[in-house]
Amino acid sequence: MNTVNRQVQLASRPKGEANAENFRLVETAMPTLADGQVRVQHHYLSLDPYMRGRMDESKSYAASQPLGEVMIGGTVGAVVESRHPGFNVGDKVVGMGGWQEYSVVDGNARGALRKVDTTHIPLSAYLGAVGMPGVTAWYGLMKICMPKAGETVVVSAASGAVGSVVGQLAEARGCRAVGIAGGPDKCRYVVEELGFDACVDYKAHADPKAFYLALKEATPDGIDGHFENVGGMILDAVLRRMNAFGRIALCGMISGYDGESIPLTHPQLILVSRLKLEGFIVSEHMEVWPEALKELGTLVALGKLKYRESVAQGIAAAPEAFLGLLKGRNFGKQLVKLV
Amino acid sequence: MNTVNRQVQLASRPKGEANAENFRLVETAMPTLADGQVRVQHHYLSLDPYMRGRMDESKSYAASQPLGEVMIGGTVGAVVESRHPGFNVGDKVVGMGGWQEYSVVDGNARGALRKVDTTHIPLSAYLGAVGMPGVTAWYGLMKICMPKAGETVVVSAASGAVGSVVGQLAEARGCRAVGIAGGPDKCRYVVEELGFDACVDYKAHADPKAFYLALKEATPDGIDGHFENVGGMILDAVLRRMNAFGRIALCGMISGYDGESIPLTHPQLILVSRLKLEGFIVSEHMEVWPEALKELGTLVALGKLKYRESVAQGIAAAPEAFLGLLKGRNFGKQLVKLV
Repeated sequence: MNTVNRQVQLASRPKGEANAENFRLVETAMPTLADGQVRVQHHYLSLDPYMRGRMDESKSYAASQPLGEVMIGGTVGAVVESRHPGFNVGDKVVGMGGWQEYSVVDGNARGALRKVDTTHIPLSAYLGAVGMPGVTAWYGLMKICMPKAGETVVVSAASGAVGSVVGQLAEARGCRAVGIAGGPDKCRYVVEELGFDACVDYKAHADPKAFYLALKEATPDGIDGHFENVGGMILDAVLRRMNAFGRIALCGMISGYDGESIPLTHPQLILVSRLKLEGFIVSEHMEVWPEALKELGTLVALGKLKYRESVAQGIAAAPEAFLGLLKGRNFGKQLVKLV
Repeated sequence: MNTVNRQVQLASRPKGEANAENFRLVETAMPTLADGQVRVQHHYLSLDPYMRGRMDESKSYAASQPLGEVMIGGTVGAVVESRHPGFNVGDKVVGMGGWQEYSVVDGNARGALRKVDTTHIPLSAYLGAVGMPGVTAWYGLMKICMPKAGETVVVSAASGAVGSVVGQLAEARGCRAVGIAGGPDKCRYVVEELGFDACVDYKAHADPKAFYLALKEATPDGIDGHFENVGGMILDAVLRRMNAFGRIALCGMISGYDGESIPLTHPQLILVSRLKLEGFIVSEHMEVWPEALKELGTLVALGKLKYRESVAQGIAAAPEAFLGLLKGRNFGKQLVKLV
C-alpha cells in the first residue's frame, strides 16, 4: 500500500472568481490507525457547486472551509484497513472523505461511513443519482415543487447530476418536463436520452429577451413547478412564465457564487402570481433520505433513471475539474477518478 | 331620498404614476329595484393599495378594472330600500359597492352583501381590522409567517390597516414585533399605542445602508417572520437580517405599483438562509375568514386590537385620498366617509 496520501487543500480564499491558485496539492504521511478507525481508499471524489460557497468567508449555509485544510467533499471507495468490527477490508463505502486519496474514519461516528451494495448499482452512482445530488433532486421536486400529473416542471442545469434526476422524476409523475442547459449537445441529451419534453439552450439565447421567448415557446401552458440551480437571467425569465400558485425550489444560484450581485428583476411577480419560493439544502432534511434513496436506487438498478458522468483522472486534476464545473464545462455528474 | 348617485369611474389607465386625471366623477340616475334586489347607501368606502394594480391592463392577480366603469372597492352602509325578504331597511351591511354613494345588490348573490352587528364594533371597522385588511394580516401571519413565541416578526407599513394588525397579533403570540413606518409620528404610534417592541423609520434612514443598520439595531436576534407590504429597499434589508428557516409573507409591493422595476438585490439569500417566501391574496383563502373574523372581532370589541383611520369626506375626495395612500400620506386605514 501507498505510504503517501496526496490531498488538495484550500490555499487561499477567492477574490471574485475562484481560480487554480486557491488550491494546493500536498503530500501527507499515512497515519497509523487507532482502535475503531477505518482507512478508506477513495475510488471517486465528488465535485459539487456547493463547495464554491464553502471557499468564502462570507455567510453561507455551512461553515467556511478552513484555510490550509483538505477540501471537503463526498467520496466513494473501499476499506483497505480496519480496526473496527463493523468494517472489513474490501467493503465498498460512501463518506465525506474530502479531496484526497485516502481518509481515516471513526467507524463509530454515526453516518460517517455507509456500506453500499454495488451488485446492481455502480459505485460512482452513490455520489450522483443515488447519492446527495439525487436526494437533492427528489426533495426539491417532491417536497417543494409538489408536481401533479399534467403540470409543467422546469429545471435549470438540466443535464447535471441534480437536474437530470429532477426532470426524469417529473416525467415519471406525468408532468411535462422542460430542461434548461447550455449548448446543443446537452439539450439533445436532455430530450433524446433523458426523455424530457423540451430543453432550452441558454447559450443559443444569450440575452434575456431571446431566452424568455425560447422558454415561452417551450412552456406553452406556463410553468407550475421550477427547480432552480442557476439563478440570474434564468430565474427572471421563469418567474414571468410561472402560473398562479406555482412553486419554486431554490437549490443553487451558481451564477452568483463568485460574489457578484444577481438581482431578481421583478420580485413583484411572486406576489402577482402568488408563488411560493423556498431555499433548501438537503443535508438538513435527513428524514427523507431513506425513502428517496430507495426510489432512486431502484430506478437506477432497473435502468429507468439515466445519468451521465464527467470523469477527471487523478487527484491533481480536481481543481481544474471543479473550476470547469462552475463554468458549466462538465456534462453530467462531475467526478474525479482516483483508482 | 336622493335621486342621483354620484360615482367615481376609471377614466384612463395610468402611464407610470397614477394621478387625478385617471378618475372621473359622474352623476348617474338611481335605477328602480327589481325583485330580489337591495339598495345600499354607503356610509364608508374603503381605499386599498390593491386598487392600483386593478387600474393597469398588465397581468395582476385580478382582472383589470374596466375603463368607464365605477372603481371597484369595499363598502359599508345601510339598506335604504329592499325587495329581498332577507334584508330590511336599516340593516347594516358590508359589500363591494365600489366608489359611489349607492349600490344596487342582488340579495341572492352568495357573499355579495353581509349583515353586520354594530353593537360592539364600529361599522367602519368592518372595512379595516375586522374586514379584508384584518383577515389579510391574520392569514399572512398565521399561515405563512407561522410565528412562535420568542421569535422576531417584522412588518412594513406598520401603522397601516394591515400592518398594525400583524404586529399586534404577533405581540399577542409572544413575539418581538418590529414595525417599519415612515416618519416619527407613525413610529411613535406603532410603539406607544399599538405596543410593538420597536419601529424603524424608513424616512429617517433613507439610504439602503442606513436603513439596514437601523433595522439591525431593532432586530438584535435577527428576523424569523416577515410580512411585506412595501418591497424594494425594505425587503432587501430584511432579507439580510433573516434567520435560517425564516418565513416571508408577500402581501404587497406598493413601491412597485407604478410599473417601475424594484429588483431584489440579493435573492441568493433565500437559498443561503433557506427561506420560504410566499405571495398571497386573501380573497383566495375564504376558508380562513370565519376563524380570522371571529378572533379579530372579539379583540376589537374588547379594545385589545387598536387601529387608526384616515377619513376623507365625500365621494369627490376619493381620488386624492387614494393617491395619498399610495404615497403613504394616510395614517392607518384610509376611508372615505359618505354619510
